[in-house]
Parts: sequence; structure tokens; C-alpha cells
Amino acid sequence: MDTKGIKEAIQWRKLIDVLLDAKQFADTVLKGGQFINVITREIYQADVAIKGEYILMAGDCERLIGPSTKVENVAGHYICPGFIDSHMHFESAMLTVTEFSKLSIPTGTTTLVADPHEIGNVLGVHGMQEMVREAKTLPNNVFFTVPCLTPDAPGLETAGQDITSADMKELLNDPHVQGIGEIQGFSNVRPVFENAPELIDDLIASVSYAKSIGKTIEGNAPALFGEELAAHIISGGTHVSCHETTTKEEMVEKLRYGVSVFMREGSSQRNMAECIRAITEEGMDSRRAILVSDDMVPEDLMNSGHMNDIVRRTIAQGIDPVEAIQMVTINPAAHFGFRDIGVLTPGKRADIAVISDLINMTVDQVYLSGRKAAQQNKLTTDIPSYTYPESVKCSVKRKPVKAQDLVLASQASSAKVRAIEVIPDQNLTGAREFELKVKDGIIQPCLQQDVLPLLVIERHGRSGRIGKTFIHGFKLKRGAIAESVAHDTHNIIVTGTNYDDMVTAVNRVIAMNGGLALILDGKVVGDMALNIGGLMTDEMTGVEVSEKITELHRLAQEELGCGIHVPFMHLSFLSLVTSPEWKITDMGLIDVDRFQVIPTVL
Amino acid sequence: MDTKGIKEAIQWRKLIDVLLDAKQFADTVLKGGQFINVITREIYQADVAIKGEYILMAGDCERLIGPSTKVENVAGHYICPGFIDSHMHFESAMLTVTEFSKLSIPTGTTTLVADPHEIGNVLGVHGMQEMVREAKTLPNNVFFTVPCLTPDAPGLETAGQDITSADMKELLNDPHVQGIGEIQGFSNVRPVFENAPELIDDLIASVSYAKSIGKTIEGNAPALFGEELAAHIISGGTHVSCHETTTKEEMVEKLRYGVSVFMREGSSQRNMAECIRAITEEGMDSRRAILVSDDMVPEDLMNSGHMNDIVRRTIAQGIDPVEAIQMVTINPAAHFGFRDIGVLTPGKRADIAVISDLINMTVDQVYLSGRKAAQQNKLTTDIPSYTYPESVKCSVKRKPVKAQDLVLASQASSAKVRAIEVIPDQNLTGAREFELKVKDGIIQPCLQQDVLPLLVIERHGRSGRIGKTFIHGFKLKRGAIAESVAHDTHNIIVTGTNYDDMVTAVNRVIAMNGGLALILDGKVVGDMALNIGGLMTDEMTGVEVSEKITELHRLAQEELGCGIHVPFMHLSFLSLVTSPEWKITDMGLIDVDRFQVIPTVL
Repeated sequence: MDTKGIKEAIQWRKLIDVLLDAKQFADTVLKGGQFINVITREIYQADVAIKGEYILMAGDCERLIGPSTKVENVAGHYICPGFIDSHMHFESAMLTVTEFSKLSIPTGTTTLVADPHEIGNVLGVHGMQEMVREAKTLPNNVFFTVPCLTPDAPGLETAGQDITSADMKELLNDPHVQGIGEIQGFSNVRPVFENAPELIDDLIASVSYAKSIGKTIEGNAPALFGEELAAHIISGGTHVSCHETTTKEEMVEKLRYGVSVFMREGSSQRNMAECIRAITEEGMDSRRAILVSDDMVPEDLMNSGHMNDIVRRTIAQGIDPVEAIQMVTINPAAHFGFRDIGVLTPGKRADIAVISDLINMTVDQVYLSGRKAAQQNKLTTDIPSYTYPESVKCSVKRKPVKAQDLVLASQASSAKVRAIEVIPDQNLTGAREFELKVKDGIIQPCLQQDVLPLLVIERHGRSGRIGKTFIHGFKLKRGAIAESVAHDTHNIIVTGTNYDDMVTAVNRVIAMNGGLALILDGKVVGDMALNIGGLMTDEMTGVEVSEKITELHRLAQEELGCGIHVPFMHLSFLSLVTSPEWKITDMGLIDVDRFQVIPTVL
Repeated sequence: MDTKGIKEAIQWRKLIDVLLDAKQFADTVLKGGQFINVITREIYQADVAIKGEYILMAGDCERLIGPSTKVENVAGHYICPGFIDSHMHFESAMLTVTEFSKLSIPTGTTTLVADPHEIGNVLGVHGMQEMVREAKTLPNNVFFTVPCLTPDAPGLETAGQDITSADMKELLNDPHVQGIGEIQGFSNVRPVFENAPELIDDLIASVSYAKSIGKTIEGNAPALFGEELAAHIISGGTHVSCHETTTKEEMVEKLRYGVSVFMREGSSQRNMAECIRAITEEGMDSRRAILVSDDMVPEDLMNSGHMNDIVRRTIAQGIDPVEAIQMVTINPAAHFGFRDIGVLTPGKRADIAVISDLINMTVDQVYLSGRKAAQQNKLTTDIPSYTYPESVKCSVKRKPVKAQDLVLASQASSAKVRAIEVIPDQNLTGAREFELKVKDGIIQPCLQQDVLPLLVIERHGRSGRIGKTFIHGFKLKRGAIAESVAHDTHNIIVTGTNYDDMVTAVNRVIAMNGGLALILDGKVVGDMALNIGGLMTDEMTGVEVSEKITELHRLAQEELGCGIHVPFMHLSFLSLVTSPEWKITDMGLIDVDRFQVIPTVL
């Protein structure tokens, strides 16, 4: 029994007093609104009475209004549970938990389930625990689902820390840790089974331990069907999610197999419109359909919203508004086994979104644990900024590089090379081959074919390796771009039209102790330090980060001629070895399906 | 981590091997059937592959069929998860867990959630633990939800043992104990709040403790609305069921308030047809609608079936068959948080019902943990009978009674008396007044008005009290009927057309150490010993009990002229002080809503 449980018991007792004693009253009553009931899938008029942090009841609350009750007239507005983002990464926004929350709360999101595996790959247990520590200071609900394996593909890449089942006891036994996060090292379970079956033993040990202490496990099963999908589900303990479902056919199969499908609608990857067809066209029960953001940039949070925007887009696909809202409230609460959020029934936490326009999902007010936290898209509660300890701020452990470290060499006059093909707005990549010129023994970038060097430089003070290949479709015209954000091990990734600018870019990232850099003709065109693990910053607000990123994107486009949308995010996913087809790590070019390093130069 | 979890981990690892190693195969494949998917609410053709106790997958399982795989052709049949009865009492069937299971398994029920509060009232923690011990010997899933308070109404009745929050640690920490059972002592929470608020403190202590160790709590909220319903829900820890919902209006309110409504369709009380209108007429989401039996007599189990019969009746009310099946599979699994049953997805327990006729819910085969347990309504697995220890077989602690102990006295020539009115097939009763003749200072039964004495004789060796009132509408013409089954404290209850036969009836029950007795003209017309706590027998099979009960009902009707359906069950509920309006206990006539003893003679 923890103190939270005891406090809750005391509160429950008080709520019963208020409900049954004619001389006691609610603290707040939201009066005359249209109540969105996510259990019964109905909308009807009902008041909502609040006492302390909890809902007293939703119905006719006239009796509960006393002389000191604050009555908020919400006639013409809709009242629904605050939204849950069931799968997201703070690191993708480069924001602290605090700064993300400050942008997210006014949009109606009251619960975030964050997967901190980025910081976990860089700083291990310590890094993740520092994020949990920050979350505990905040008024919204922030839960974490932690990795049970870093790096995702041991032997194919180098992380800052190696997490295994041995770390589960220390990581999972915190009330803010919901369970094990996306088991993406096992997305493609067959190659692991064939090449590293001992990893499956370790996974099952972690998963069974998590289950034994009541924790959950999230899956990640892009393009899996049949036996492979079944094996993935079992390896995750039989009750898993997948947030990398991209086709209707996959959606149908996964729902049938019992997966909670987290339809992803983030800043760069949007799969809902395709997935939702399983419901709109086939009429499947949607109880295990859930909406998530996965990766959001602050600009989108500010300009378009968060889960409210995703719900809006889902309604636009022909889903009934209440059914869409179920996908960000009761459905995720059921998936995770959350007992006190996701519905607005007696004794549940008073996390509420008041909506003025249901089709456009315009959020008018937000309540967190019974207190008004935002109105008309502005925070009404003070959330101080949060500063991380120095222990997470010296994560780049590498001396500057030189040109000879980065070049791809060949003895021939031209070289046939493999290149990773960028697929816009997808983690998935293509596999291509090109013929490139060689000059002075160095394989040259080719702007005409849009084939540029793509390198990953280990930066955790471990292997020291530099992995080298080529990229096609990044549409960079000049200079170089480098960053310490490179999924999931977050070594330094760089591409460029010439090796000199690439050297400058990498060294700028090293000098900043992590961050983003745009280089042209040996000069820094733009940069941004990411002082927490080389992934996030506690030196800027969400608005400042957004402005900075917007500026960097403008510079990338205008100064470097980069023709791709959100280039830093795209670049960062080219080292994610868990989604096919080819990726790059510090070990070199990786054939994801074959689970091995393959040569770039043929 | 318990051994069950470790064994499960080992099994999961084996399942992955079978799925991914082309040289390994399923043990059993059910081939070519129509798969009922309770997650997506679909029916489509799919094989089901089984390894050991678990499902490998449901889909195209051709690859998993090896030389030793047993292939069962189920073309033309429907495959669905085994059924869950989410709320039932073995005591109502007077059968051991074993004998009940032997009748229930062939009907497709693979999981029973039993509330042993009857034996709990008589024998306390020890009695319930003996039932749990029996359950562990069986191949079906049997979970228990245990009372946190006996008697239901301290001060208004006398149980054999007083259970409070102090017993929760000992009771709840068993993997077969699912949580706290129906909190019927708080069905009507306002009188408790006004008369015995310390009981609410004790309840909250039990509930909070249960929640802290991951256990659930069941409610019981007949006729509650608004503030009272909200207070009941919170007193049960905010996530409760109700199996005493009898009207569409109540069903609508409870679903809206977040209650899991257990629509009861037992042998004597049937509420589904009324409740289901919230779904068929109002189109409410049915995810929290669940079907339960509550009280079943063995005769009905044998002749009509169990959950399959209840599903059949639900389909007949216009519910889609798959939606009806959801109410006995995925919906209850979600309510209780069962992680390994309720759906047939990879890694879940292979508890399966094969159905030959979906509309009539004819069950052709039943699998328990991957093994065929029944075919064409016959068990195909050996389940030996179970004998209870002597410690539960001496539960009637009372010397024989005499006529002067039982009579209702009056000094007047006639008496105005209160009488409990029987409402056929309901726990609820009415409140009536009658004028009765007095002879020799004794108030006389009146056959003309159908008003007979109704008494409860304490039999636990505690208060020794005898509570006295009258009953109207029991339609007994001759003799007396007595039993040691009298909800929930299970003292001896008796009614009759004359005091002498009532004395003989009570003394027959005492002599048998519990049981049922029909007396006419001082002679035993029929009887049945219930040697376990005076509630159940381990000396008869389900078939024998059924035949015996049928015989007793025939005798009651033919010899005693009793015009009421299932008289023993009806009689036994007249002492249940948790459902309005008037009831009888060893303390006397109880006004349930006012939570007090009221005089019978006015």
C-alpha cells in the first residue's frame, strides 16, 4: 500500500460524505453542458460536480450546489474526459516534460504515456529516472513505458548504455512507470529468433517480471502478419499495442489478433486515415483502436493542437465524434488498465476537457484533478520551468573528427554503391544502388542523382566507430546537416554535399555537447544545442524551440536548398534499425530484415 | 513472481519456437471453422492452432500442422472463447464446486467467478478457504470474490462469523481470489451512512487494500440512482458491478455512471430482457454489459444449460449473436482485468467452446487449457468427486425448539400484523398489513388471506434469538417448510400453516446438521441434508441433487399444496436484508430502507 492509495481512500470517504450529507456541497459544478459519455457512446445534458481532485457525479447536480460552490456555466459546450496520448516521446519535441506539457495541456491532453527510450539509449536508467523525477513535479498525468533492451539491435549498433532484464526491477517499480515500452528490438522477431535467440529469452524474462508486478508491455509490429505477428504478440506477453500499423490490411489483422492498434498521427507520420478504414469500411468493433502522436514537433502542438487535432482528423474520416473521443479516453484507459482516468464517473480524477465546437475539437477549458488549468488555449495555472542536473548534460564523449575519418574510399575510377532511399513521412526506407564517381580515391557525392554520403559517428565513448553509406532522396543542394538525434542509439548522424562541411557539422555538434547544425562553406548557418543527452533542451521554452526549429528548417531550405519536409526528423530516423528496409548505424549499412551489416561499396 | 508466472514464461518461449521454427508444429488444430472474434465483433473462417495449454494463433494454420498434430475438422461449426459466468454462488445450486463444474463445463462455461459469501457467513474465512482449496483441483477456471463484511447488516442479524477489513489480508492474497465480492451490505448506502457510518470506514479500508494489491471489487446497487448510486460506486472503489439491475431506466443510469451491469438470468431471477432494452432501444455501447447467472439450480443447468442458455435468450431479445457472446467473454474479462482468458488470441489460454448452432447456442465441444473436456454435452475428462473436511460439517449449533419458542403471542382477540409480501421471481418484497385471529393468546395463521408465520431461528450458537413475522403470498396450503439456507446469515428459516409442523420442520433441519425439510402432520414428507455449512452437499452429484430437489418441489406442490415456483429458493431470500422492502432475521422484521427492526404486531 503506497501513500497515494491511502490519500485516495481518505478522499473517497470525503466524497461519500458530500454525496449523502445534505449540508455538504461540491467545490465546483460545470452546469448545463452536453456530456460526452465515452462508456455508453452518448451525448446528453448533464452537470458535472467536482470535490477536491475527483468527480462526485455527472447528472443533475442541483442538490450539490451550495453557497461556496463555484458554478461554471458551460451551456452549449461539451464536457468530456481529458485526452490521453498513449504513445509519445518528449525527445521528438526536443522539449522537457514540463515544456511539452505547457503546450499540450491547453489542447485538452491531460495524460501522456511517454516512452523515454531515446534518453535510455544515451544515458540508461539514470537518464530515464531523471525524466520521471521531472514528471512528478507536474499537474498533468505523465506515465513512462521504459525499454527492456538498449540498443534495439545489440551487435548492429552502439548505445550509451546497455539495458537488459537485469535493469527491470530498478526501472519498473515506480508508480509513474506504467510498464515496458515499445519492444521494437523485436518488431521483426524472425531475424532475432534466427540470429540472437538469447535476446528473446531476456525479453520474456523482462516481460514476465513486468506482468508479475502488474505492469504492461507495448509492442511494435510494422508489417507483421500470421505466425510472425503471433510470435511478436507472445514475446510481448500476449497483450501488446502497435503504433506502426500503416495499412488497412494490417489494421484488420492486428485487431483480429488482439493487438491494441495505436493509430499514429504525429508531425511526420500519419497512419490513421488508412487504418481507420477497418472501422469505417468493415464495421469492426473499435474498442481496441487508439490514437497516438508518437512524434510531435512543438510547432504543430502550437499551431494545430495535440490529441484534439488528431480526433478532429479522425472525425473528418467519417467516424462519429464520440467514437473518436473513445479512442483517446476509455480505449487507452482500458488498454493500460488505468483505474482513475479516461471516464468521468463517480470517484474518478476530474481531468476534463470542455469543448466549444465538437467537429473542430476546439478546446475551451481544461481541468486537471479538479482545478482549471487552461482556458481558451492559455494555461491558467503556473507551471515553473525545470532544470536538469549536470549529470545528463555531458553526453557527447568524442573528440573532433577529421575529413579522413569521414570519407568513403575506393580504388576504382567509379564505384557501385548502395544507398538508403528516403520515403517521405515514413520510418520505412527503400534500398537503391547507384554508380558514383571516385576522385583521389574518395567516392564523391552526386547531386544530379541526389546521392549523398550518410554517416553515423559513435559518440558515447564506447566503440568509436564511424558507419558509412549513401542516401538518396534527401534533396540537399549545398552544405551539410548533422545532429546528435539519431534513432535509437543517438550517435551523431550527418549528411552533406561535401565532406568538408560534414566535418564542420559533426564537430559543431560535438562542441555543443549535442544538438543540431547546418553548415555551408565551412560556416555555421544555424544550430541549436540540445543539452540534455544531446536530445532535449532545458534552456528554451516550447515556443522558443518551435521558433528555432522553424528558423533552422527555413535555413535548411533557403540556404542549403533542402527539399525535404522536416529534414532533422527525417535524418534522425535513418539510423532506426527496427523498421525496414535499410538503415545506417555506427557499424555501417544495416539490412534490417536480414539483421546484418552489409557493404555499401559493391 | 509466483510459480504460475514462471511456468507461463517457459510456455511462451515454447510457443515462439513453434511459430517460427519450420520444424515445430501445433499439438491440435481446429480446422475450417467459423471463428467468432469477440474483439472485432466479426465471424470469419479461421483455423485455431493450440500448443500445450495455449492458443498459438487463429488464422490460416496450415503451416503449423505436422505429422503428430491432431487435426479436428470443425467445418460448419463456430469457434469462440469459453464462457465466463461473472457472478454466481455454488451454494445456490447446493453443489460442491466440483459437481457444479461437471454440469457447467459441457455447456461451454470455462470460467466461474464465484461469490462464497454464503459459506462465509456461516463458517468465515475457513469455510471460504476450503472452497478455494477445492477449486484448485479442477481443470476449469474458478475465481472467488470474497465478502469484506459479514453479516451484511451488523446489528440487524447474526452470522456464524463476523468478517471485517481485518480479514482481508488473509483472504485476498490467493491467486484464486479475484477480489472483494458484492458489497451488498452497502447496496442501500444511505441508511448505513446515517446509522452505522463506521461500516463505511471499514469498507473503504478493505476496498483500498484490495485495490493496492491489484484486486477488484463488485458492487450491488438495486434501485439506486443519482447521489446514492454515486456514493455506492465510490464506496466500492469507483469500478464496480451491479447484478441487481431490474429496469431499463436503472440499466441506462448505471451504464452512464460507469457500472459494469451484470444482467442476471438465473433460475429464479431474470432481468436481462428488461435491461437489454438500453442497448436494443437506445443503442448504448454494450462494452460494460455482462451476463451472469447469480443463482442456478442444477435442474436448469442440466435441462437448459448455463451461460449458453443465457446467451441464447439474449439473442432472442434482438442482440447480434457475437455481441451477446461478447457479454460472456471479452466484456467480463475486461471488467475483471483477466489477462489470459476471454479472447482467443496468441498466447491466451485455449479455453474454447465449439458451437454447432449459433442461434440455439448448441455447444458441441469444449476445450479447457487446450484439452478437450466435453463433447456433445458429455464430459470427456475425468473429474473425481471431492470430499470436504469434517471441520465444515457441524455448522448447526442449536438444540431442538419447542412450540412455545415459535409462536407469536397477542393478548387481544385479533391482531393487526405486518407481513412480508412475496414478489414472484424477485429478491425484492412488498410490505403488507393484515388482521389475524388470536386463539389462546397465539396469533393464528390465516390460509384464506394466505398469511402464515415466518420465523428465523439463529443456529450459529451465538445470539440464540428467534425472529418472528408473517408472510403473504407463499401459497402454502398444509404443513411446514424449513431450511438452513436463509440469505445471507443462513440461520434456519421456517414457515407453515401450523406451529406444530413448523417445530418438527426446524428440528428436522437441526437433526440433519443443516438441510431442507417438508413436514405434514408431524411427519417428514421429504428432506435433504446439506452437510457443508448447512448449504451444500458433497454426498450427491449434480444429477442426484437435481432429482432430489425436483422431488421436494413435487412434494411441496402435491403434499403441501404450495403454489409458488421454487419454494426453497424463495423462502431463503426472505431473510436477505440488503434488498427492499421488508425482510426477516433472527432479530425480527427488518425495514431495509430504514435499516431497523420494526414490530410485527401493531
